[in-house]
Amino acid sequence: MLRLYDFLPSGNAYKARLILAQLGVPFERIELNILKGETRTPAFLSKNPNGRIPVLETEPGQFLAESNAILVYLSEGTEFLPSKAFERAQVLQWLFFEQYSHEPYIATSRYWMAILRQADEYREALQQKQQPGYAALAVMEQHLSNHSFFVAERYTIADIGLFAYTHVAEEGGFALEKFPAIQDWLARVKAQPRYISITTP
Amino acid sequence: MLRLYDFLPSGNAYKARLILAQLGVPFERIELNILKGETRTPAFLSKNPNGRIPVLETEPGQFLAESNAILVYLSEGTEFLPSKAFERAQVLQWLFFEQYSHEPYIATSRYWMAILRQADEYREALQQKQQPGYAALAVMEQHLSNHSFFVAERYTIADIGLFAYTHVAEEGGFALEKFPAIQDWLARVKAQPRYISITTP
Repeated sequence: MLRLYDFLPSGNAYKARLILAQLGVPFERIELNILKGETRTPAFLSKNPNGRIPVLETEPGQFLAESNAILVYLSEGTEFLPSKAFERAQVLQWLFFEQYSHEPYIATSRYWMAILRQADEYREALQQKQQPGYAALAVMEQHLSNHSFFVAERYTIADIGLFAYTHVAEEGGFALEKFPAIQDWLARVKAQPRYISITTP
Repeated sequence: MLRLYDFLPSGNAYKARLILAQLGVPFERIELNILKGETRTPAFLSKNPNGRIPVLETEPGQFLAESNAILVYLSEGTEFLPSKAFERAQVLQWLFFEQYSHEPYIATSRYWMAILRQADEYREALQQKQQPGYAALAVMEQHLSNHSFFVAERYTIADIGLFAYTHVAEEGGFALEKFPAIQDWLARVKAQPRYISITTP
């Protein structure tokens, strides 16, 4: 059985939980508390030298890190990853956009505010995250203003990748009121079969 | 013919130039000076709303952004991207590692120091990039201390993705003396057939 090294509040780990639920694939969940250094132990670093969750143990002793690589691996050959070459490339384009232009601002702000609960300590750093975070949301809003989903006009792992932290952006101090197309898309994602919330183990 | 929207000093754009050279695929190169805002014009934003190079025009009017998505798109079905499922996933793992844990520290430092030439202005920010940048190099060093290349013991786009900014890390203030395995790997990459330097248009 697949084994997922997880931390329930993590949006990156939620991506793996969500695709596994939607694929109907059973898995064993190993919860690690990143706030207690449990991803920096020698035992865990032997699984992922980069010391981060999620990690998927695809077979005993074989480990895959990086949430979006896990999404691609699990969805290959399923309805959640297109088969046409350019559509596949577009899925990857959005997944790399998510990790480079979105997650470091929106997810990191949420981490400081909602998980560490240190909004005061991080006040200045949070301020610096606002402009690039809103820029990422604006890119998404523009795309979604004339598309139902990110790629191929249907729900794919590009949506899962971007949904994970966008739907909890307000926990990081990002207001979604001015992004009606994003709000409509969030509702479409939540309406997908076998959807589970980020708090579902 | 493929068209590449490019900025010669960019390591991200170099990834596309290098794989195209190694595949022997001809392409037209459109140079944009990011220092003069040429990637923030309405004309360019219509190609990539995120306002970044490289962008590959795969056919007239069809644009693909994100350097590592371009690498995957171009290498699909070639020797530069493995066909086995788990090896493909490992390639993606390293490409996401590059964009999340490596590029924002090592490439950004080089951008401030070697391209903007504003090391003094960015002194404090540069300092903050040191620890996470060296942490990324340490992860690479550990992997390369018992692997010839990042995946499948042969040269793939995972190596191209990580080579682009690692081989010029010293331009961003990162010393490679303490990373002998990285140095040996850099030499192996430079010895690949049809290798071109980052300054080759």
